[in-house]
Amino acid sequence: MGIRGDGTGGVAVRAELIAVGTEILLGQIDNSHAKFLSQDLAAIGISVFYHTVVGDNAERLIRLLKEAASRSDVIILTGGLGPTEDDLTREGVAGAFGLPLTFDEGAFVAHVTPFFERLGRAPTENNKKQAWRIGAGVFLPNPRGTAPGQYVQVSGKHIFLLPGPPLEMRPMYVESVRPRLVQLMGDSVIVSRVVRLYGIGESSAELEVKDLMAGVNPTVAPLASEGEMVFRITASAKTDEQARRMIAPVQGELEERLGDYVYGYDDETLASVVLSRLLENKKTVSFAESCTGGLLTSMLVDCAGSSRVLRGSVVAYDNAVKTELLHVPKMSLEAHGAVSEEVAYAMAEGVRLATGSDVGVSVTGVAGPDGGTIEKPVGLVYIGVTDGKTTNVTRRLFSGDRTQVRIRAAKHALFLVIQAMKKI
Amino acid sequence: MGIRGDGTGGVAVRAELIAVGTEILLGQIDNSHAKFLSQDLAAIGISVFYHTVVGDNAERLIRLLKEAASRSDVIILTGGLGPTEDDLTREGVAGAFGLPLTFDEGAFVAHVTPFFERLGRAPTENNKKQAWRIGAGVFLPNPRGTAPGQYVQVSGKHIFLLPGPPLEMRPMYVESVRPRLVQLMGDSVIVSRVVRLYGIGESSAELEVKDLMAGVNPTVAPLASEGEMVFRITASAKTDEQARRMIAPVQGELEERLGDYVYGYDDETLASVVLSRLLENKKTVSFAESCTGGLLTSMLVDCAGSSRVLRGSVVAYDNAVKTELLHVPKMSLEAHGAVSEEVAYAMAEGVRLATGSDVGVSVTGVAGPDGGTIEKPVGLVYIGVTDGKTTNVTRRLFSGDRTQVRIRAAKHALFLVIQAMKKI
Repeated sequence: MGIRGDGTGGVAVRAELIAVGTEILLGQIDNSHAKFLSQDLAAIGISVFYHTVVGDNAERLIRLLKEAASRSDVIILTGGLGPTEDDLTREGVAGAFGLPLTFDEGAFVAHVTPFFERLGRAPTENNKKQAWRIGAGVFLPNPRGTAPGQYVQVSGKHIFLLPGPPLEMRPMYVESVRPRLVQLMGDSVIVSRVVRLYGIGESSAELEVKDLMAGVNPTVAPLASEGEMVFRITASAKTDEQARRMIAPVQGELEERLGDYVYGYDDETLASVVLSRLLENKKTVSFAESCTGGLLTSMLVDCAGSSRVLRGSVVAYDNAVKTELLHVPKMSLEAHGAVSEEVAYAMAEGVRLATGSDVGVSVTGVAGPDGGTIEKPVGLVYIGVTDGKTTNVTRRLFSGDRTQVRIRAAKHALFLVIQAMKKI
Repeated sequence: MGIRGDGTGGVAVRAELIAVGTEILLGQIDNSHAKFLSQDLAAIGISVFYHTVVGDNAERLIRLLKEAASRSDVIILTGGLGPTEDDLTREGVAGAFGLPLTFDEGAFVAHVTPFFERLGRAPTENNKKQAWRIGAGVFLPNPRGTAPGQYVQVSGKHIFLLPGPPLEMRPMYVESVRPRLVQLMGDSVIVSRVVRLYGIGESSAELEVKDLMAGVNPTVAPLASEGEMVFRITASAKTDEQARRMIAPVQGELEERLGDYVYGYDDETLASVVLSRLLENKKTVSFAESCTGGLLTSMLVDCAGSSRVLRGSVVAYDNAVKTELLHVPKMSLEAHGAVSEEVAYAMAEGVRLATGSDVGVSVTGVAGPDGGTIEKPVGLVYIGVTDGKTTNVTRRLFSGDRTQVRIRAAKHALFLVIQAMKKI
């Protein structure tokens, strides 16, 4: 192990991930842990060199573990901690490193039986396996299931055994693994700040902050998905306060350069920010959707508490619905077509009046795959936002297939509502 | 290699998958190929023993390939076939097996330059790398990108190099890899039939067809997601017709036992079957959504052609919208509450009349996390379906969080529409 190159005095740690489970090799489920763990390990400055998936087979697991120990400092195993004969991770680790496996009555009472008590059931004889200690292993609590994790140190290697279900694995990693890894590196806390952007492409955004992304502590990691862009800034330090002090100038610099595109932080989404802004401004909203077909409304409804701001929506697919429920003038539809600035304008105003909301938002466009013309190609979308006094209609051409055009149009509409709320 | 145990005379083949790409180890993207390839390999009867992800590093890739060749017959590599210095998969395979790498002018003209011609650009000097032949490797065409794949046979091992982008990798696998693997096993075609079920749990369904799932050719593989259940029946044989003849009795037996739950086949979805049934019956539809908040409509709109059957929808979140746009009697709302059989009834009929559709569908429920009571707990949903003559309201209690309750309620509504269309 060499000295970490960020001047904080920590050490370089090489890690690898092993997922145990024949169901992954059969393609029945994804190895969804790999991305989660890799992201977090990268954020705290640990290099991951291999991900491996191996089946519920002791021989192959032992062979793999020996190889892994010859090349990595930290091995994180997920899966295979259940009570059945197929659950072989404990046996595999013990076998690979020649460690004894002993039933630990105390661990059984402390870690395995409480979960059954909450369910009002008794553990079976099988469940005793879940309290087998590997050598001098340390059990890691699992309040969400019957399988405690385990931390085994052997020949200078750090081996973590975590349960397979994501709802058990993720909190156990955060509570019991990450702090030990951070300590291993000579620090004691890790703090992350996520900055969320909309309306800028991945390559443009990265170009603007390339120098920041070259930093080692804090690290700045980009992530893009369907028109959104995220930067995660992560610092490791002796104290929480010190980590925050290290993040602040980097976040400040990032927002100085990309502030126009920043819409939220950490766990926020476009929809949750729309909900917050509407609540702050004590405004209600309604949507008139054509090509998005309910998707826009559904994004807001996915946020708990949306009933406090959403009056309702009209999905006006047929022109008759546009005229009857939204009172779009027949003349506008005939003169300009359903996908037009005029109709977007009338739909936004129409839904506001029909539902009695403060803000009305409309989307009308050509989602494809058919229905495009030279004048109005697939991907063309008009989005209207009105507060009863001012109505703005935005014209956009989105790329992608039918589903992507619809998702991008809905997200763009949410972004426009956030911007409109800023102006109040 | 041993003889395959299905009496068809094929041979047992052990395969492993290697994804090359530092971006996967950093957690920036998922190794999404593993599930796709594993499912297909399982379906054609090939056992996958390892998935590994390794970074863009020749030394680690060579070490891994040597290990892989010592334990597997088939190695499928994805990624690292681009033109840059980071693209090292060709070098890795050549290095691991001591094979020469030679620039192949003919392959360059046949496989690399045509893509640039379509873009109206010239390939760069870098792109020549993409026509490096590994030993006596066979190039695999890639009409969707600049990186041809390659098939290398060495010491009785079969090594396939495929590009990383899924839109290039998947068709190349289907067109150039799968047929070679099928041939390797002594067969010449693979045929799959997917049977889609709704309304039965994974374990109940599997229990019913456990004996069928034990078969080797055809294989019967289950897959469950959010209330839906899928069985993929796959046969390998000398001819397409023979494979279909092998599938037919297994499918017949499966439908004999689980027919009540079968709603579709192959690429169909609940929404696409709703669309087909409505088209067949020449009926239009509209939705009145409360807790699903546009999600139900959005599922139908996601199917191309939905404009031929969908008149429109009303998301009636606020009670005032229920009374004004859907003409739900105020008395019903006051006497029974918004989440009630009576209101579901009135909403279905109301949206049918408001939009002028043949069929009206309503959903009202408690999606949570708040708003549940002892009488009306989180997850309680009423779904109404009316054709103007008969109106049926179904009461269901769904488990899961807010998002899951909403998805399950929307899917259940689609299933009820399919059933209603059967009765016409």
